[in-house]
Order: sequence, then structure tokens, then C-alpha cells
Amino acid sequence: MSDILQQLDQVLEARKADSPDESYVASLYAKGIEKILKKVGEEANETIMAAKDLEHSINIDEDKEHLVYEIADLWFHTLVLLASQNLTSADITTELQRRFGLSGHAEKASRPQE
Amino acid sequence: MSDILQQLDQVLEARKADSPDESYVASLYAKGIEKILKKVGEEANETIMAAKDLEHSINIDEDKEHLVYEIADLWFHTLVLLASQNLTSADITTELQRRFGLSGHAEKASRPQE
Amino acid sequence: MSDILQQLDQVLEARKADSPDESYVASLYAKGIEKILKKVGEEANETIMAAKDLEHSINIDEDKEHLVYEIADLWFHTLVLLASQNLTSADITTELQRRFGLSGHAEKASRPQE
Amino acid sequence: MSDILQQLDQVLEARKADSPDESYVASLYAKGIEKILKKVGEEANETIMAAKDLEHSINIDEDKEHLVYEIADLWFHTLVLLASQNLTSADITTELQRRFGLSGHAEKASRPQE
Repeated sequence: MSDILQQLDQVLEARKADSPDESYVASLYAKGIEKILKKVGEEANETIMAAKDLEHSINIDEDKEHLVYEIADLWFHTLVLLASQNLTSADITTELQRRFGLSGHAEKASRPQE
Repeated sequence: MSDILQQLDQVLEARKADSPDESYVASLYAKGIEKILKKVGEEANETIMAAKDLEHSINIDEDKEHLVYEIADLWFHTLVLLASQNLTSADITTELQRRFGLSGHAEKASRPQE
Repeated sequence: MSDILQQLDQVLEARKADSPDESYVASLYAKGIEKILKKVGEEANETIMAAKDLEHSINIDEDKEHLVYEIADLWFHTLVLLASQNLTSADITTELQRRFGLSGHAEKASRPQE
Repeated sequence: MSDILQQLDQVLEARKADSPDESYVASLYAKGIEKILKKVGEEANETIMAAKDLEHSINIDEDKEHLVYEIADLWFHTLVLLASQNLTSADITTELQRRFGLSGHAEKASRPQE
């Protein structure tokens, strides 16, 4: 699972060498942080709207899929934001680990302090 | 790294048995999806404001730390949202894997299609 | 001043008869509430980013103008949202009037209760 | 109608002389622009969620009232933001007037260019 975030960090790093014409991510880097933040805001908003649809849903499975899609979009654009500042997903997971007293290796999740 | 998200999923699942008085996460579940979505919106907004501070920053290291803190808060509350709908971080990483043609195991990140 | 909001309500009402091809507002109506809400979210986000630029500004006048521009965009899209639901700016100003104990005609603004 | 926005501008200006302990608006000024922007973001988010409830509504009248309430909150906090920067509602209505080719006095709203 984490392999995926690490691989994605590598992909996002590699995109820095690309031309804005050939890659969506390279085009975001080229347009700058303002554009990246607009996308983060958009995807957060779309996450919230998808969750509201799910709340009122008569098509639970389809609306759950839509919610997952939007949260993936939101995470992806926060990863682009991080990469643009030379940060990675590891900075986020390390902060979550610290905050919840999680082990880097342990299987159990005994009551962490919040 | 992914261990951390998986452990966090387990923590969030375990919180469903807790009293809203003893746990912040249990209190979010009890208040319902509207409250969780307010938090997601708030944390997205704080992420954007932290990134704007960093853009104009004269204290780069401190402002990078603040940005990481806010994105961790945003990811955390999206995980609470997922857990409240019986979804997990694996649903998000699987979607990202699918989208970017990433391997679940491979080390390399050869050009995926976006 | 209020004449302007009333006139704008009338413009937005008149747009309901237009083809989506000939008018931006008619195209928003045609795309539906989800699209209008995406615009409201975008303009709120741009308002916040413009205010952060102003906070850090070395070009106060220009950044104030930008902030005014974004808030006008935000108000405009909330007016489109209202019109799409057969509501008007008068519904908002009446609510503000009620809340702040303001008179519809009086000149003075003696301490209202909040 | 506009009288109301003008009166509200005056109320918000008068609040600058108040103690943060005695007035909500004075407390927002004291906490600074970051706090005001959090409120703007919150109210935009609540506007969007109220509109989604209305979209799926079986209580149209009640949900319309709720939407009006949230948009009033959003406008109110943008007015606080403007006042904090020594701007007023007139700056917004003037920008809307300019943009839509509206007359400050005329009754008719003949097709403006957008």
C-alpha cells in the first residue's frame, strides 16, 4: 500500500523534468502554486459534494465509488503540492505516525493518544 | 510507510466502539457526516492558507512544517470520512495505483499514463 | 447601491429564457446546481487566496482591487445559485436586516444585537 | 435593500471601536485576517452543503430557508473581511455594476454584455 505512495512520489519527482506540454503534472508545476491550490480547493469541494450525494443516496455502491474517486483526486493534488515544495508523502505519514503514536512496523494498533 | 495508513485505518475502526466522550474520533462519528465534512472543508482551507504563507515566506522551514501539519490534518479527516462509510485508505491507494498504472510491488516508476 | 443587486436579480431571471450557447449564466443553469456550486467553491477559494496575497502584500492597492474582484465573483455566483432556486438578493438582505435589527429605511446604525 | 448593506457597513465600522469581549465582530478583527478567512471558508462550505441538501430535498421550504441563512452568513463574513481592509459593500456593488453595465439609477435591466 505504502509502496504506492512512494512510487507516486517518484513519478511526481520525475515529472519535474518533463515539458508542460506532455504531462498534466508538469503543466501544474509550470503554472505555479496558485494553480495547484485551486485544484486542491476544487477537489476538496468535490469530495464534500460527493459525500453529500452519498448521504442522500439511493445508489450507495455507485456513490461510494464516486467518493473514493474524489478523495483520490484530493490526495493526488496534495501530493503534487508537496512535490512542488520538495516534500513527499513520507512527510505526511511520518507526521501521522508521530501524532498517533503508531509504530513503523508493529501490527497492532493499541490505543494511541490523540 | 503504508503500515502507518493501515494502522490508522485500524485505529479509526476501533474508535467506533468508543464513547463520544472519551475520543475525538468517536465524537465525530456521533455528530455525523455533516460535521466530518465541515472538518474536511476546514482542513482543506487551512492547507491552502498555509501554502500561501509558504509562497510568501521568510521562514521557509517553519512554514513547510506548518504545511505538512495541515495536509496531515486533511488526510486524517478524509480517513475519518472513509471509515464512517466503511471505506479505508486502501480504497484510495488502490484507486491511485489503478490510475497511474503503478505496481503493488515494483520499485520502479516507469512513465505511467495519466 | 441596492438598485444594483435588484437589477442583477432581474438580469439573472431574464437569462433563464436564453440559450446556453449565448450566455454564461444560461450555460450555468443548464449544467445544473452541481456546476454552480463548483463555481461558488472556486470563487470562495480565490477570495481567500487573494486575501492571503493582500496580507503579505507589497502592492496594497493592486491586491485590494484583486480582493474586491474575487468577492464580486463570489457574490455573483451566489446570486446565480439563488436565481436557480427562484430566490433573490432580497432574501439575503432581508435575512441580514432581521439578524442585525436594521431598519429598511433608517439612516442610523445604532447598536444592533448580534 | 441597499440601505441594508450600507447600514451594515456602518455597523461593521463602528465595531472597530469595541472591545473583543463585547462583540463577535470585534473579536474577529482582534484575531486577524486568518480567522476571518477561516469563517469565510466555513460559510462557503456550509452554503454548498445546504444547497446539496436542497438538491435532494423532501422539505423544500425549510431547506431553501437554510440556504438563505448560510448565504447571508457568507455575505456577512465577506463584509467583515472587507471592513477589516477598510473596504465596503459599495466596492463590491460598484464592481458588479461596472461588470454588468448596470445603471446606478435606471430601472430597466436591458441585456448587459457579460
